[in-house]
Amino acid sequence: MATIKDIAAKLNVSTSTVSKGLNNAPDISESMRQQILDTAVELGYTKKNYSKKLKKKIGIFFENIDYYLDDDFGYDIILGFKQAAFRENWEVEVVPLSHGLQKKRSYDTFMMKYNFAGAMICGFALDDPWMQDLETTRVPTVLFDNYLSENPHLGSVGTDSFEGIELAIRHLVSLGHEKIAYLAGPEDSYIAQHRTDAYKKSMRMHHLFADPELIAHDRFVYESAKPYTKRFLARGVTAILCGNDLMAMGVIDECRQFGYSVPGDISVIGYDDVPASEKNDPALTTVRQDRIMIGKSGYYILHALINGVPLSRNLIRPTLIVRSSTAEA
Amino acid sequence: MATIKDIAAKLNVSTSTVSKGLNNAPDISESMRQQILDTAVELGYTKKNYSKKLKKKIGIFFENIDYYLDDDFGYDIILGFKQAAFRENWEVEVVPLSHGLQKKRSYDTFMMKYNFAGAMICGFALDDPWMQDLETTRVPTVLFDNYLSENPHLGSVGTDSFEGIELAIRHLVSLGHEKIAYLAGPEDSYIAQHRTDAYKKSMRMHHLFADPELIAHDRFVYESAKPYTKRFLARGVTAILCGNDLMAMGVIDECRQFGYSVPGDISVIGYDDVPASEKNDPALTTVRQDRIMIGKSGYYILHALINGVPLSRNLIRPTLIVRSSTAEA
Repeated sequence: MATIKDIAAKLNVSTSTVSKGLNNAPDISESMRQQILDTAVELGYTKKNYSKKLKKKIGIFFENIDYYLDDDFGYDIILGFKQAAFRENWEVEVVPLSHGLQKKRSYDTFMMKYNFAGAMICGFALDDPWMQDLETTRVPTVLFDNYLSENPHLGSVGTDSFEGIELAIRHLVSLGHEKIAYLAGPEDSYIAQHRTDAYKKSMRMHHLFADPELIAHDRFVYESAKPYTKRFLARGVTAILCGNDLMAMGVIDECRQFGYSVPGDISVIGYDDVPASEKNDPALTTVRQDRIMIGKSGYYILHALINGVPLSRNLIRPTLIVRSSTAEA
Repeated sequence: MATIKDIAAKLNVSTSTVSKGLNNAPDISESMRQQILDTAVELGYTKKNYSKKLKKKIGIFFENIDYYLDDDFGYDIILGFKQAAFRENWEVEVVPLSHGLQKKRSYDTFMMKYNFAGAMICGFALDDPWMQDLETTRVPTVLFDNYLSENPHLGSVGTDSFEGIELAIRHLVSLGHEKIAYLAGPEDSYIAQHRTDAYKKSMRMHHLFADPELIAHDRFVYESAKPYTKRFLARGVTAILCGNDLMAMGVIDECRQFGYSVPGDISVIGYDDVPASEKNDPALTTVRQDRIMIGKSGYYILHALINGVPLSRNLIRPTLIVRSSTAEA
C-alpha cells in the first residue's frame, strides 16, 4: 500500500506538500494539487478519511480490451477514470465482462446487486447481450466508442474522428500528398463508419478526390494490411491512412515486401497511438487518442448523468503525433 | 435574501430536512437532497460556510439572448448552470456581453482581470470580436450552440439536432405524413446547418424524398414564415417542420391566411419549446431543448475543462413534446 512518503518521493516534494494536496489546502498551486492527486491514484494510495466518506461506488467495465499490463490499451483508461473519480470520493471497481456473465444477469440486476451507482463500459459490440438492456436501463451509464439513441440515462464518449482524420489529412496535404488511400475498420463498426465519413469529408475539404477504389474495410488487426496494400500501391498512392495503429504497422511491412520504403516512397499514418507505435520501425505518425483523457472524460460524463443531466454524445480532442512514417511526397 | 425557512416552506418540508440537504447529511434521500439544492439556488439562498470556501468564480455570458425575465430563453439556462455549480461551491457571475465590451478588452485579459476561472458563453455569432480570441485562449470555456476546432481549452454544448429532428419526423411519419417541408434557420448558422443535415438524414432513414424545393432558409424569427409558407402549400405538403418555435408560430398564422387549418389540413412542428409554445393557438408540438439541462451540462463540461479534460463537442438529448399542432395527414 502506497504512503504519503511514496507520493512525495515520486514527485520530489515534501510530505507536507503532499498532505496539503490531498487535503485541498489553499496554499499550494493548482497544478501541484492535480499532480499529487493523480500520483496518489497511480500509486494506489487510499486515504482513510476518504474511505470513510464513501457511500457508493462506480464501475469501469471491459470487454474485448486488455487492461492489466501497463502497455495494454485499457490500462490508462482505468487510470484516468480513477484519477477523476478520486477527486470526488467515489470508489471505483474494475470488472471484466463476458457474454456468459451478461447472459446470467440482466444489466440492471447486476448493477443493483453489486451496488454500482453507474458505470463506464469499454469495448462493447452490438452483439453484446447487455446492449439490449442498455436501451431501457435507468442506471447512469457511459459507453466508450459506442452510442445508443434516446435513453437519457446513457451517454457516450470517444475521440472526435473528424478532427483526428482532418489533422492527419492536413499533415499529408502539407507534405504534398494528393493520392491518399484509407484502410478502414470493419463496415459494421460504429467508430469505423465515423472515421470513413471523416476521411471523405476531409478529402473534400482539401479538394481531393476520395476515390472509392482507395477505401478498403477490414478488421482492426495487423493482418488486414495484406489484402489491400498491394492494390493501393498499384493504383499509385503516395500515402496510406489507417483506421488504427496495428493496421498501419501491417501496411508498412507490406510496403517493404513490395520494395517500397516508408516514408521514402509511401507515407503511412495510424490512429490511436498505442504504446507500440513509438517503438515501431519507423516510429509511427499517428492520431493520438489520449487514453488518460478518455478515462477522465468517461468519469465526468458519468458524474453529469448521475446528477440527472442527459449528456448523450461527447467527444474529446485528438492530437496528431508526427514521427518518422511520413515525409514529403 | 432567502433563508432555510423559505426553502422549507416552498418544498413543504421541515427546516431540519433542508439543513440536512444543504449539509450533505446521509439520512435523507438523494432526490430530496437534489430538490433542496435546486430550490436553494432558485430562491437565491447563499450559505455562509459555502461562501467561505469559495476561492474562484466562473461566469455565464450572454449575447443576443434575453435572460432577465423568467420566460426569457436564457433564464433557465442560468438557473441550471447555477444549480450545478452550487453543488461544487463555485461562485457564478452573469455577464451581458456587447461587441463594444469585447472590442475594449481581449477575452483573456477580461477573464484574468475579473478573476474568472472559466465561463459558459451563450448566443455568440461568428462575427463576435472574441471569437478570434477563443481560437487560442487557454481559459476553460464552453460555447452553447457553437463550435471551434482544435483548441483543447474549448468545449461546446447543445442539443442533439439529429435525435431531435428524427423524433419530429418519426412522429409525422407515424401520422401518415410523407410530404414534409423544412423551414430552416440561416445558412451561415452552425446550428441551422446541423438541423438541415438532420432533416435530410432523417427523411432518408424513413425512405422519404428530401426535395430541395421543400427546404428554405431564413432568419430564426416569426416573419420568416411569410415568404415560404405559400410556396410550400402550393407544392402540396401536409406538414411543415420549422427551425424554431417562432418560425412555427409564423407558419401557423400564414396557413390560416391561406385558408388552411392547423392541424386539420397541415401539421406544424417547432423546435426549442420556448414558454410561448404552450400558450400558442393551437399549442405547438415541438422538439424540446431543456434549458435547465443546457445550463447544467454547460457547467459539467466546464468543470471537466477546468480539470484539464479536452471534451470538445457535447450534446444533450432532446424530447418531443406533442401538443395540438400535429394530427393525422
